[in-house]
Amino acid sequence: MASMPIEGKVFVIVGGASLVGSATAAELLDHGAAEVRLFDSFAFGSEEAIAHLRDHPRLKVVRGDVMRMPDLLDAMRGADGALLLAAYMTLSMDRDPWGGLDVNIRGVQNALEAARASGVGKVVFASSNAVYGYGPGVAGDLAEGVPLHSEGAPPAAILYGASKIIGEQLCRHYTHRHGLPHVVLRYSTVYGERQHHRAANALYIIETLEKVRRGEAPEVFGDGSETKHFVYVGDLARANRMAFESAASDVAVNCSGPEPVTTLELVRLVTELAGGGPAPRFVGNEPGKVRLTSGGAFRIPHDKAREVIGWAPKVDMREGIARLIRWKDGGNA
Amino acid sequence: MASMPIEGKVFVIVGGASLVGSATAAELLDHGAAEVRLFDSFAFGSEEAIAHLRDHPRLKVVRGDVMRMPDLLDAMRGADGALLLAAYMTLSMDRDPWGGLDVNIRGVQNALEAARASGVGKVVFASSNAVYGYGPGVAGDLAEGVPLHSEGAPPAAILYGASKIIGEQLCRHYTHRHGLPHVVLRYSTVYGERQHHRAANALYIIETLEKVRRGEAPEVFGDGSETKHFVYVGDLARANRMAFESAASDVAVNCSGPEPVTTLELVRLVTELAGGGPAPRFVGNEPGKVRLTSGGAFRIPHDKAREVIGWAPKVDMREGIARLIRWKDGGNA
Repeated sequence: MASMPIEGKVFVIVGGASLVGSATAAELLDHGAAEVRLFDSFAFGSEEAIAHLRDHPRLKVVRGDVMRMPDLLDAMRGADGALLLAAYMTLSMDRDPWGGLDVNIRGVQNALEAARASGVGKVVFASSNAVYGYGPGVAGDLAEGVPLHSEGAPPAAILYGASKIIGEQLCRHYTHRHGLPHVVLRYSTVYGERQHHRAANALYIIETLEKVRRGEAPEVFGDGSETKHFVYVGDLARANRMAFESAASDVAVNCSGPEPVTTLELVRLVTELAGGGPAPRFVGNEPGKVRLTSGGAFRIPHDKAREVIGWAPKVDMREGIARLIRWKDGGNA
Repeated sequence: MASMPIEGKVFVIVGGASLVGSATAAELLDHGAAEVRLFDSFAFGSEEAIAHLRDHPRLKVVRGDVMRMPDLLDAMRGADGALLLAAYMTLSMDRDPWGGLDVNIRGVQNALEAARASGVGKVVFASSNAVYGYGPGVAGDLAEGVPLHSEGAPPAAILYGASKIIGEQLCRHYTHRHGLPHVVLRYSTVYGERQHHRAANALYIIETLEKVRRGEAPEVFGDGSETKHFVYVGDLARANRMAFESAASDVAVNCSGPEPVTTLELVRLVTELAGGGPAPRFVGNEPGKVRLTSGGAFRIPHDKAREVIGWAPKVDMREGIARLIRWKDGGNA
């Protein structure tokens, strides 16, 4: 049985000072975790992302680097579960592929090895729908068997997607070879409270909100028909918790929100929820900026997550963006 | 113009003490290269593989490790072209994924960085049809736009394929960001003189030959209908040379032999060319052994290689296996 109950257990969240990390820490603490250790180098993670949790008596912040085994071995000592979040995403991979491959590949090897050596009972690995790739080939239902499309996609996006595939396969290797159970969750684009500026796709929400708040027309790239499929951070935190609790191991499932949106729908929704503003302006893609495109309308089904870990998203974009705006208005007041 | 003529130029072959490396060295020397440097750690490479070249006055053997930048920077000083061959394949990746990801990813980063820093004029990167993956999804024509299928494939095979995708994308990154021209050649399964025992697919030829020579029945896994698409090492050596010479850059092309074969056809052909022997024995797949399967009949077209670098294979399997057998009989006499 690969089930890891939350109550009374110790969890390490590698890359924990993050949007998903802080939300998952709160989720695990709320469900009775004895201790949650947020392991982060603070290269991308921030004090801000975890400020709301810092005084929690069962939360520990551990400064450490996934490239340093001693840091990981220290952090995993006596832990029951490990959630592996630390990663460069496409934008940072574009700026620094060297560092990105370090963290996304060697960092995952180090974390898995530290988990194995420390007797951790279950690993949840944060993968991404980037494993299906980008470019003209990406369309329709992106269920879990869909291959990695790379034709016509920028190098950084494929480096990111391929690095996540490698992370997944390393998890499988550790399960098959060393008996360390794991669940892979392929997150779609995350958004929600404590949204950062590092995710290429989630930027749309933040950029639109900031423009509208300044009274400027929000920008829609292309004709606005491009699909995005987001997932609300609170839903992901719940998915992470349920992946530990479930008996599942050696499996990869999508975690996406209730429905995809087009970028035009998204910009209109954010404008409306921000209290209204100018009509969107249609612009071409900026040269030199990594914008990720697909071949057409796509949808990321999450039926397998329901079957395997009993999870389905609860928060739709109207509710999620409203929460994000409330947080931003409160947090930036 | 990304053309790199061979005559009078200096080439480094990283991972050179190998089947493809030694054949390419001979090809480049025959075409007037001023110097060919075979860079190898001799972890997988062997003295045997290059014995026939050792006394060549324009050949230099350089012991070095792709994980050590000083070794690479020394080897690339004053070089005009670099061929990047060093890699773990699936079988060695299965035994040691840690070392495999080191060599196939960090090793490629190091080699590209050393090439850039040394002012190398063109890089040829040895990729693989493993970028199309394995398992049920792999069938039909595997032209260059086909995505990476991983569903149902063993971890090591996908680690290998994904590491090759990353190598290709690193080449693109160095071309786009640093102006270092490159051509990616996606080799299909290589065979020929100086065949080693490390390639999962090419093993079929060697194992069959050894069985037949011992008077034992050769083994066919499954029903023998599985496709393999080989390429003769001499054809690949020519492809490497032509990739340097051509004006092409920032492109990836398949290099495959004239036609695919089924494993049953292959075993029968080897038996016949070895002088006859017992009929093949049909066996199931051995547990614990990495055998790579596809979803059905497939073919790896090489039309794009013809368009882009003017290359097409010349040696069919009947001729190539006859040459391999002649070499083995001579070499092992």
